[in-house]
Amino acid sequence: MNIPAQIKEALSKGLISAIAQDAESNEVLMLAWMNEEALLKTIESKRATYFSRSRNSLWVKGETSGHFQEVVEIKFDCDGDAVLLKINQIGAACHTGEKSCFHNEFK
Amino acid sequence: MNIPAQIKEALSKGLISAIAQDAESNEVLMLAWMNEEALLKTIESKRATYFSRSRNSLWVKGETSGHFQEVVEIKFDCDGDAVLLKINQIGAACHTGEKSCFHNEFK
Repeated sequence: MNIPAQIKEALSKGLISAIAQDAESNEVLMLAWMNEEALLKTIESKRATYFSRSRNSLWVKGETSGHFQEVVEIKFDCDGDAVLLKINQIGAACHTGEKSCFHNEFK
Repeated sequence: MNIPAQIKEALSKGLISAIAQDAESNEVLMLAWMNEEALLKTIESKRATYFSRSRNSLWVKGETSGHFQEVVEIKFDCDGDAVLLKINQIGAACHTGEKSCFHNEFK
């Protein structure tokens, strides 16, 4: 798997954003970050793998909770600094137990 | 409109991410950035307003193209550093003319 040139360029400047969207309901579940290794692991394993900025290390989503994300499709945006993962979410995406991390509404 | 404390804290450290999702089709259209002023303008005007990192200035989406984004709902994530805008997209979200910026597939 070759990483497209636009993404390569973006990765040379830093982390890229990764949006996880439920492949069936189309609900947006979370936003996280990737370095090149995380992106390659995601493509190869078909399990969403991010780069944790707080722990400064790779992070296979679900490796402790069992709430893996099975990757169905990956798209990337026009400037190559964001990817959109269409996934099947096992369990909840959010560590709070909510299905989506975007569960807070402005009041 | 008071900005929730989690978002305030995230904004004190830098820009936050903003995902624009079509309110009807649920298609993810783009990812951009906001500072506090952009977020407040978005809430008040109900037109998506971002912070352009390349131009280092506020950017009302559609102000030159006419492709405004009418904001229907705003949610924010568990750590307050990303917002999800449910929008009605006038015209195309992407400057290429594609409906979504995420129109590139991995091959």
